[in-house]
Amino acid sequence: MTQQNSAVAAKMMDFMERASWIRKMFEEGAALKAQYGADKVCDFSLGNPDLVPPQAFQEALEKIASDRSPGAHAYMPNAGYPKVREEVARHVQKDHGVTPATDGIIMTVGAAGGLNIIFKALLNPGDEVIVPIPYFVEYGFYVDNHGGKLVPVESKADFSMDLEKIDQAITPATKAVLLNSPNNPSGAVYSEEELKALASLLESAEKRVGRPIFLVSDEPYRRLVFDNITVPPILSIFRNGIVTTSFSKDLSIPGERIGYVAVHPEADGGPALVGALTLANRILGFVNAPALMQKVVAESIDSLVDVSIYQRRRDRLAEILTEAGLEFEMPKGAFYFFPRTPIEDDARFAAILQEQLILTVPGRGFGCPGHIRIAFCVQDEVIERSPEGFKKAMASL
Amino acid sequence: MTQQNSAVAAKMMDFMERASWIRKMFEEGAALKAQYGADKVCDFSLGNPDLVPPQAFQEALEKIASDRSPGAHAYMPNAGYPKVREEVARHVQKDHGVTPATDGIIMTVGAAGGLNIIFKALLNPGDEVIVPIPYFVEYGFYVDNHGGKLVPVESKADFSMDLEKIDQAITPATKAVLLNSPNNPSGAVYSEEELKALASLLESAEKRVGRPIFLVSDEPYRRLVFDNITVPPILSIFRNGIVTTSFSKDLSIPGERIGYVAVHPEADGGPALVGALTLANRILGFVNAPALMQKVVAESIDSLVDVSIYQRRRDRLAEILTEAGLEFEMPKGAFYFFPRTPIEDDARFAAILQEQLILTVPGRGFGCPGHIRIAFCVQDEVIERSPEGFKKAMASL
Repeated sequence: MTQQNSAVAAKMMDFMERASWIRKMFEEGAALKAQYGADKVCDFSLGNPDLVPPQAFQEALEKIASDRSPGAHAYMPNAGYPKVREEVARHVQKDHGVTPATDGIIMTVGAAGGLNIIFKALLNPGDEVIVPIPYFVEYGFYVDNHGGKLVPVESKADFSMDLEKIDQAITPATKAVLLNSPNNPSGAVYSEEELKALASLLESAEKRVGRPIFLVSDEPYRRLVFDNITVPPILSIFRNGIVTTSFSKDLSIPGERIGYVAVHPEADGGPALVGALTLANRILGFVNAPALMQKVVAESIDSLVDVSIYQRRRDRLAEILTEAGLEFEMPKGAFYFFPRTPIEDDARFAAILQEQLILTVPGRGFGCPGHIRIAFCVQDEVIERSPEGFKKAMASL
Repeated sequence: MTQQNSAVAAKMMDFMERASWIRKMFEEGAALKAQYGADKVCDFSLGNPDLVPPQAFQEALEKIASDRSPGAHAYMPNAGYPKVREEVARHVQKDHGVTPATDGIIMTVGAAGGLNIIFKALLNPGDEVIVPIPYFVEYGFYVDNHGGKLVPVESKADFSMDLEKIDQAITPATKAVLLNSPNNPSGAVYSEEELKALASLLESAEKRVGRPIFLVSDEPYRRLVFDNITVPPILSIFRNGIVTTSFSKDLSIPGERIGYVAVHPEADGGPALVGALTLANRILGFVNAPALMQKVVAESIDSLVDVSIYQRRRDRLAEILTEAGLEFEMPKGAFYFFPRTPIEDDARFAAILQEQLILTVPGRGFGCPGHIRIAFCVQDEVIERSPEGFKKAMASL
């Protein structure tokens, strides 16, 4: 199965081969754009936020870029500038109603960096991390990087958690449950009731298996929610909570790789856990989050892109999908629809849409076949030229 | 041995315990500064470049920070902006006399990020990486992160490579030899003659063991050299060469975490190797090197801090150490002295220096007891107040 190549690690060869269908899909999409013109193709395949960063970010960036004081770009402690971490702790208190110790904030290279230091700090070989389906495809890599095993668990049809199945999936090897709410790809937001039931389930399970089970919350979309809902505060709900997030979506700066990890002040492990996270930031080669951007995000931490634009696009796309006859759960946050496909084979349906110059991602990429992901972080005109294509694709079945 | 803590990974608890002497040392240093005043202590313990970034960097930073065009901070390909990589390829051609394909340049989160993607791309479980002693302490972690085993090999007394010992250390599990020249902590620069002999040794060994052995060159100090010497071009010398470096020292911006990996265009593995490095950048959670800094370093790539300042400090410190009676090899590059300690126990000698308010790092931290590392990336006044302390420490023995 694995292509032989004595130069490259066998596991990486295997990863590349398994991901080849995604690469092929992107290549086909690029070929379509070359053939018909990028302005004819509706590219809903990428989760790359397109809104401009808030004015406060731009002002902070220009001000801090002009700082010529000695050491402005020097190393700082691996967990980040103490002043930045204080500001982030204040922000976490506002979101979660719990104040992490300043030490319990570690500035990271985005939420992807955050998840990697969390799993490095927590996982012994073979430890399991439970994740509700659908889930972001990178999670499998992040857990595997550190010797753990991702355990995907089916959710209900509306993408709410199936707590019974989660409970059944817990074993003495379970080290964490990983949540992503608002969810990529489903747009679901877990309710406070659901999360409290999960917390109580985990407390019982911790007693049963005799060791801590952490609730790891990957929440870069926390503030990208619609219809004025609020994402429940994980750290208020569960003591062994670890939050990671980034400023990628709040400030539309995903290329800058800046985020943080926040640890509940009373989490098991105490200072050793915070020490392990900080050491992990160092030894995994991140060393520290980028210096300049730490200072910039601390100054623009309360700013947010214009979420009403995402909401407008969501509402319009909901009409279009409904008219075409697609079935979906209305996304409560993030910028994705995750409709059921009208035929079982999601890759086949994505190929049919592609014939109509509509690019999406098959749900199997998120552990959830029978769906497609439609990202609406795109200009309104892209959405406006899509109705006919969706209708034709549906009619062709 | 390992403290029990069911919350934190056992390996991380072990790492923290083994590193506790370093932490203790830094805490004692901090206590000395608090007690006597920071201006009384000679802190030679940190490799944090203190020179101001070059003017060209500052100008590029301010210009690029003011760019408000859409997508300025968006995701780009995992390997970095194509235009930045082209500029870096041109720079590598100048340094190494070999032109990597543009695809063979991967922008990274510093050289630490570079080494981690290299080892992730190369190592199968149990693969060995040979490194000449002394070596940067982080190498052990970077290799271990990806299931490999670091194999330190003794060097000659002048820190040149002991090629016979390197040859003896090669086994069928050897995947790479890792070099750092100019060297942290010794300041040694491997000569072209030495490197050519190593290359020929590796070519024979590759035939003997029947698989490629990569020469991984970690060279952030390439341009920080003294007396007008030049660091030999690894990629011209060995075909299976992979270079990683950062702009941390050239531009004095280590907090910004920006560097790159350059692969020899004819290296074994070909496109699969480049693909694996790029995938590793993504799945290890770096995702991509920070967007803004990629653009800034591409514009200031030929700039360099004022190396004559480091050379002046080196020359002055050489006088001081000689007068105190310490024996050392004159550093040819980087910003470290690595003198032999007059007593066998390097930690004890570091403690004796600490009594004189002089902070250094024992050689055992670099796999090389019987030495101490003295970093001279410090203000001249720090150096000027050190002679008496060095003399008193020597006299006290």
